[in-house]
Amino acid sequence: MSNENIRNEKMEAIVSLAKRRGFIYQGSEVYGGLSGTWDYGPLGVRLKRNIMNLWWKMFVEERDDMYGVDAAILMNQKVWVASGHTNTFSDPMVECNNCHGRFRADAIDTGKCPTCGKENSFSEPVQFNMMFKTHVGPVEDESSISYLRPETAQGIFTNYRNVIDSFHPDIPFGIGQQGKAFRNEISPRDFIFRTREFEQMEIEYFVKSEKWEESFEMWRQLVWQYCEAIGLPTELVHEFEVPDKDRAHYSKRTIDFEFDYPIGREELLGLAYRTDFDLGNIQRETGKSMDYNVKGTNEKFVPHVIEPSFGVERTLMAVLSAAYTEDEINGEKRVFLKFPEHLAPVKYAVSPLLKNKPELVTKAREVYKLLKKKYGAVMWDDNGNIGKRYRRQDEIGTPYCVVVDFDTLDDNAVTIRNRDTTEQKRVAISEL
Amino acid sequence: MSNENIRNEKMEAIVSLAKRRGFIYQGSEVYGGLSGTWDYGPLGVRLKRNIMNLWWKMFVEERDDMYGVDAAILMNQKVWVASGHTNTFSDPMVECNNCHGRFRADAIDTGKCPTCGKENSFSEPVQFNMMFKTHVGPVEDESSISYLRPETAQGIFTNYRNVIDSFHPDIPFGIGQQGKAFRNEISPRDFIFRTREFEQMEIEYFVKSEKWEESFEMWRQLVWQYCEAIGLPTELVHEFEVPDKDRAHYSKRTIDFEFDYPIGREELLGLAYRTDFDLGNIQRETGKSMDYNVKGTNEKFVPHVIEPSFGVERTLMAVLSAAYTEDEINGEKRVFLKFPEHLAPVKYAVSPLLKNKPELVTKAREVYKLLKKKYGAVMWDDNGNIGKRYRRQDEIGTPYCVVVDFDTLDDNAVTIRNRDTTEQKRVAISEL
Repeated sequence: MSNENIRNEKMEAIVSLAKRRGFIYQGSEVYGGLSGTWDYGPLGVRLKRNIMNLWWKMFVEERDDMYGVDAAILMNQKVWVASGHTNTFSDPMVECNNCHGRFRADAIDTGKCPTCGKENSFSEPVQFNMMFKTHVGPVEDESSISYLRPETAQGIFTNYRNVIDSFHPDIPFGIGQQGKAFRNEISPRDFIFRTREFEQMEIEYFVKSEKWEESFEMWRQLVWQYCEAIGLPTELVHEFEVPDKDRAHYSKRTIDFEFDYPIGREELLGLAYRTDFDLGNIQRETGKSMDYNVKGTNEKFVPHVIEPSFGVERTLMAVLSAAYTEDEINGEKRVFLKFPEHLAPVKYAVSPLLKNKPELVTKAREVYKLLKKKYGAVMWDDNGNIGKRYRRQDEIGTPYCVVVDFDTLDDNAVTIRNRDTTEQKRVAISEL
Repeated sequence: MSNENIRNEKMEAIVSLAKRRGFIYQGSEVYGGLSGTWDYGPLGVRLKRNIMNLWWKMFVEERDDMYGVDAAILMNQKVWVASGHTNTFSDPMVECNNCHGRFRADAIDTGKCPTCGKENSFSEPVQFNMMFKTHVGPVEDESSISYLRPETAQGIFTNYRNVIDSFHPDIPFGIGQQGKAFRNEISPRDFIFRTREFEQMEIEYFVKSEKWEESFEMWRQLVWQYCEAIGLPTELVHEFEVPDKDRAHYSKRTIDFEFDYPIGREELLGLAYRTDFDLGNIQRETGKSMDYNVKGTNEKFVPHVIEPSFGVERTLMAVLSAAYTEDEINGEKRVFLKFPEHLAPVKYAVSPLLKNKPELVTKAREVYKLLKKKYGAVMWDDNGNIGKRYRRQDEIGTPYCVVVDFDTLDDNAVTIRNRDTTEQKRVAISEL
């Protein structure tokens, strides 16, 4: 079996588990789907919220130099002219001359049309702009065009002046944002890795130009701390120093942080030095000064920018991939998600040993309520025998299963079973 | 001065404060704005998150009968055909024959064009569909049309089957969702009250048809509990029983919960009995069964639905309006936001009595760090004299100002000043 196959098998197993157990469903599935969109089910929402809240706490709330914003997805079209997206945010696209299917140029390496199978029938590549276009207001003309933002970053830059005027921050300071972004990918692929609708977590960190390297290094370290905080094994994360010729024209340095996904090594997040490109554009296009004025001095300048940019879906896919584990217990294959405790959608599952014994059920409900009040993410699970419940909870990554049995009625203690070691311990309810 | 003017003055004062202090900015403001869109600044994001997290905890996490989802904004166009939005989700629009300005028919009561001033020059009303249209994928034709969802509700109905298959919930059960929705309003108005992009918090609660009244009543009580939890004065919230002729055709009962905003009494949220309209539509359009099968029996039926639907912006505007207070202190006018403590974007502001005394600053930083670690939402504020700092914190609704003075260096106690009473108390740092 080739390495490629092993990888795809793992990916398929994750996609299938994610759907079956209520993490991630295909978007609009009941209507046949909408390619490149995904919906989060009850467990997926919890996992996503745990990740996003961790990021927000770590990078915005706990820091003295950070400010949060939440800008609209629909923006004035001038934003995308100034940023260069209207002209250059495109992918090369080819069309099959036989069936008129359209594909990303790099997706037809085989020379054969993926739809109709015709060989070497492709048009020359044309540039396809990846912004979703719509019209705002009651008149549909050039002036009413708006786009679904292809990145959250511009929602930060457009509010840079507002944040300075309201808060007078000392430099360096940063603005962070979480929110949806949209790219009309020609060929969405690989589960939630390349989608048309996705969620970003971005920071623009404003610095004095001569100090950019210091802040870049700080964020590089913070990115590693973040990877650790979400439990990614260090050996699966790799820095890729993007060479001059491959960097966006406005960036003087970019490090891609890549992750060893089941589909191969791919970008997880990016850290870029964007110079004063964006604020400079706004200043030029609007005629408004983007100067930062150092308090108590006459010193004024347009700050330079360090941008750590995180994709929620790519993070989530990394967390899922890192957590997915197969082992053997008593000769039987077991699948479990080895989530770090603080990210697990369910922390405790509680059940009575037997569901047809009212005294066990009553006691187990008590324990359930106690834990739910304390930890929130607690599940009641009384279906099937204990062995099946353990397997079911393993599959959704629940770190602890709590079982109430007949002894509990005497000793007020329960059995706690550990997901990773499968070991069972007797613990007093009062010590849970 | 007429009542109308007083109201608008208050609204204007809130809008101005919200912008100046970093709660809410006009969307794309630096580029001249984009009508009907608003951006949240650092304090607005915190207020919004506090409200949304409270809702999520109260209505999803803490309940055993609720499941959360997070569906994509872009959906298969068939969703909106089945739901009726493609045909009927429209507002009457008129056009001025002189300047060709377009307006919502009910916005031109005066008979005079708001743009050019010409009188009685309007066309007959035509129906304008309020969904934002775009194209998904590389081909722009009828088949690739998609809409920005005009409500989050359909993202729940389309996942009803998925949630049942993954979780096998007992009936009644509900699915909750928070997320953006978009309506191409002809005439956005009144700050964040009627916008083109907004955030919804919706629940679809699935019940046996003969038990709908019981669940409707339960949610009615829960809605009141929610209003209390976010600190809205009961006397400003009113139930409006929507009469038969004004209800959506699929609803057999609707209560609008209205709030006395500064702009008048307007809808805050809605509670509707939607019957089996939506699941019935999906079943008819897709041919897939939307039956719920009662465990251990042969009983099968399409559930009926109770829908409590909340707007984040309308909630936020109600919270802001209820909090906005003017009083007089020593003959001077004071403005303060009387937020409930758990919603306030900043819980504590910490400052040294004098910012040029290093020993005070050092001690104050210690206190700041202590509180920040404990409560998160803590602000350092050392500009101007103490009186000015108090006014500044009053204006953003900070419940407590903590001041470190020379006595602190001896007695390890600080002065805490209460926002609402302006009373000051001496408290030991260890008891903060």
